[in-house]
Amino acid sequence: MKFQPPKGTRDLLPGDARKLQQIIDVCRDVFEKYGFEPLITPAFESFELLSAKGGLGEAVKDEIYYFKDKSNRELGLRFDLTMPLARVVSSISLSKPFKRYQIEKVWRYDNPAFLRFREFWQADIDVVGSSSLLADVECVVVTCEILDRLGFENYYIRVNNRKLLQEEFEKFLKTEEMLEVFRTIDKLEKIGLEGVEAELKQKKIDSKKILEILKISSLKDAPDNEGKNELEKFLNLAKTFGIEKRLKFDISLVRGLEYYTSIVFEINLGTKVSCGGGGRYDNLIKMIGGQDIPATGISLGLDRILEVMKENKMFKEEKSGTKVFVANVNSSVIDNAIKIVQELRKNRISAQMDLMERNFSKQLEYASNLDIPYVIIIGPEEIKRNKFKLKNMKTGEQRELTLQKIISLLK
Amino acid sequence: MKFQPPKGTRDLLPGDARKLQQIIDVCRDVFEKYGFEPLITPAFESFELLSAKGGLGEAVKDEIYYFKDKSNRELGLRFDLTMPLARVVSSISLSKPFKRYQIEKVWRYDNPAFLRFREFWQADIDVVGSSSLLADVECVVVTCEILDRLGFENYYIRVNNRKLLQEEFEKFLKTEEMLEVFRTIDKLEKIGLEGVEAELKQKKIDSKKILEILKISSLKDAPDNEGKNELEKFLNLAKTFGIEKRLKFDISLVRGLEYYTSIVFEINLGTKVSCGGGGRYDNLIKMIGGQDIPATGISLGLDRILEVMKENKMFKEEKSGTKVFVANVNSSVIDNAIKIVQELRKNRISAQMDLMERNFSKQLEYASNLDIPYVIIIGPEEIKRNKFKLKNMKTGEQRELTLQKIISLLK
Repeated sequence: MKFQPPKGTRDLLPGDARKLQQIIDVCRDVFEKYGFEPLITPAFESFELLSAKGGLGEAVKDEIYYFKDKSNRELGLRFDLTMPLARVVSSISLSKPFKRYQIEKVWRYDNPAFLRFREFWQADIDVVGSSSLLADVECVVVTCEILDRLGFENYYIRVNNRKLLQEEFEKFLKTEEMLEVFRTIDKLEKIGLEGVEAELKQKKIDSKKILEILKISSLKDAPDNEGKNELEKFLNLAKTFGIEKRLKFDISLVRGLEYYTSIVFEINLGTKVSCGGGGRYDNLIKMIGGQDIPATGISLGLDRILEVMKENKMFKEEKSGTKVFVANVNSSVIDNAIKIVQELRKNRISAQMDLMERNFSKQLEYASNLDIPYVIIIGPEEIKRNKFKLKNMKTGEQRELTLQKIISLLK
Repeated sequence: MKFQPPKGTRDLLPGDARKLQQIIDVCRDVFEKYGFEPLITPAFESFELLSAKGGLGEAVKDEIYYFKDKSNRELGLRFDLTMPLARVVSSISLSKPFKRYQIEKVWRYDNPAFLRFREFWQADIDVVGSSSLLADVECVVVTCEILDRLGFENYYIRVNNRKLLQEEFEKFLKTEEMLEVFRTIDKLEKIGLEGVEAELKQKKIDSKKILEILKISSLKDAPDNEGKNELEKFLNLAKTFGIEKRLKFDISLVRGLEYYTSIVFEINLGTKVSCGGGGRYDNLIKMIGGQDIPATGISLGLDRILEVMKENKMFKEEKSGTKVFVANVNSSVIDNAIKIVQELRKNRISAQMDLMERNFSKQLEYASNLDIPYVIIIGPEEIKRNKFKLKNMKTGEQRELTLQKIISLLK
């Protein structure tokens, strides 16, 4: 056990890698059905971009993998897929709306904990160029369709309009105070109202103001201000799409990243931890030097979805993706085994043959260890008769069939 | 144009990202048909692993992205997918043969040049645990099937057995000299016989020895030693698989990495640059502290395959993956447009609707800019009659049809 994956990272062995791939396939399929187009960007970005105002803020260096290349360029592994998108959109001109998806790894130098990794997969969609609430709703609709397809039943999506809080807070908070208050409220689900109160006290917010903040953050209905209009329009559109029952209004939802400007959402699978979220970020592209382009998007945390699905046994358990193993009774029939395994593969059947020059019983043992459901047995007799034994490894049942019959059976 | 991708890296915009995805899909499909299972490993590894004997050798620090995390752990972005596989296999016990595939990015701090990037995609398969030549051949068979499926016609795979050279060189070279000579011969295709001669002189190899080296490296047929047996067995198996016409024996092929022990291959698409290769590395897993496990594998360079395919116009050109755009004649019918676009998506048709609150002609313009092949036109009249105009954007032809008809037509 000499070498391990670096702290906070992990290997996905075939069982888990196949499961993650299934999730990725569903995401991609749904994204593409909604007209989102793929984008691929480098794993690392210039530190200047990563530390630009709007993202993780000044503390970014503590939260990312930072390094210099051999020409002393300051770089860092990307902490999300939004900053790279904003970079691309700010530097080239694309037809609007630009609907892009990206399913790749991101890295954060966080303290590893339950369901918190330093390397993790995100599946993002964003609509760039549209200020219409239809774009925000579509992102949530896509998310619901993915979660439905994956088999989740009790998930919900918390929704808020940051403007609701902002407009109320503006009545008694200074602009400098606002961001600090937002950062604290973001932790409400984690630390509770008492925790928020304590942290705001520590931040030297006036106690009368704290009382008011706590009152507003606990409202069950949206206060009557401009943000409410937007939120209602959003909810009406959600109704037309038939996803309204999945939404839960939560005025305390603000989300950590500074770049969000209005509608924000967070996905909850019924567990304590969120498995993604997003919202509208109308200023980010301009902030990093691009044009004034509105944008909205959502990000799914695939590692967490994977773990919750495993926990709830939502996957069919398969040790191997192979459908059939072609076993030879001895080495004199290798050439025939090759021909047969290739014929199976030509017919799109996942097949393996012995690559170890092992005896027959060892071959069966391997197929059984890997839970390969079928074995075809090839020997000199079978070749003469042009019929082969097909063994069902679960039931033990054996039938002698022509290769054509076997192929049509396995297909 | 403030922020750019870091030097040596690039963004793949939707057109190219879709093309790369097509290549990845073909690789995955073929890999899985041959019973290879996916593995996913972290983007970075401990520097101790990356610098272990057998891989890039002592110079590794100059050739990788090296960094320390905040606890001063020495890390580096992986330079290939073989060292991570060797790490996994050396630390856990898996049924043998372990047939794994991995399609991910790797990074090398190389001088960027034509078709040479610092971040690039590799698609690897390896068979771990088998010392049979069947395993080596299967890797090449898989490669040929992928290249066939992608539409390549004039590709070939250079093959050699390192042992051929080794056995001949052992007759007159010292062990210390051997590795240096191998490194130089590896460049033969690039720098020619004269270049090899010059470099060997520079390395202070005796001029009589150089003459002998050049003679052996130019042999058209394998010299009569033990390596020849293996090579012939390999070629016979290749014949049984029907890929012998794709193979070119090349005694000068050694490949740069130290870990190769016998059969090596390199893929040539008919261009000057190689787009991948591999071979047998029976000692690597033991060298990094694992058991004595033989292994062989092949690696495809997907960025190069992508660029060669683009160059040769081997892709269907598509600006968008969207099949149909649902255009509304005015905002009064948005709800109907939503219902229709969702119905299309439910039928697995990639569809978009207006997310910009634009007027009708601007919507058509967007669909046309993206080369979306069909537009469905929704207006109050159409809704009343329950028939909608389906416009073929290429021919301009318009037909009025029920949604059901449209769906079965577009499917």
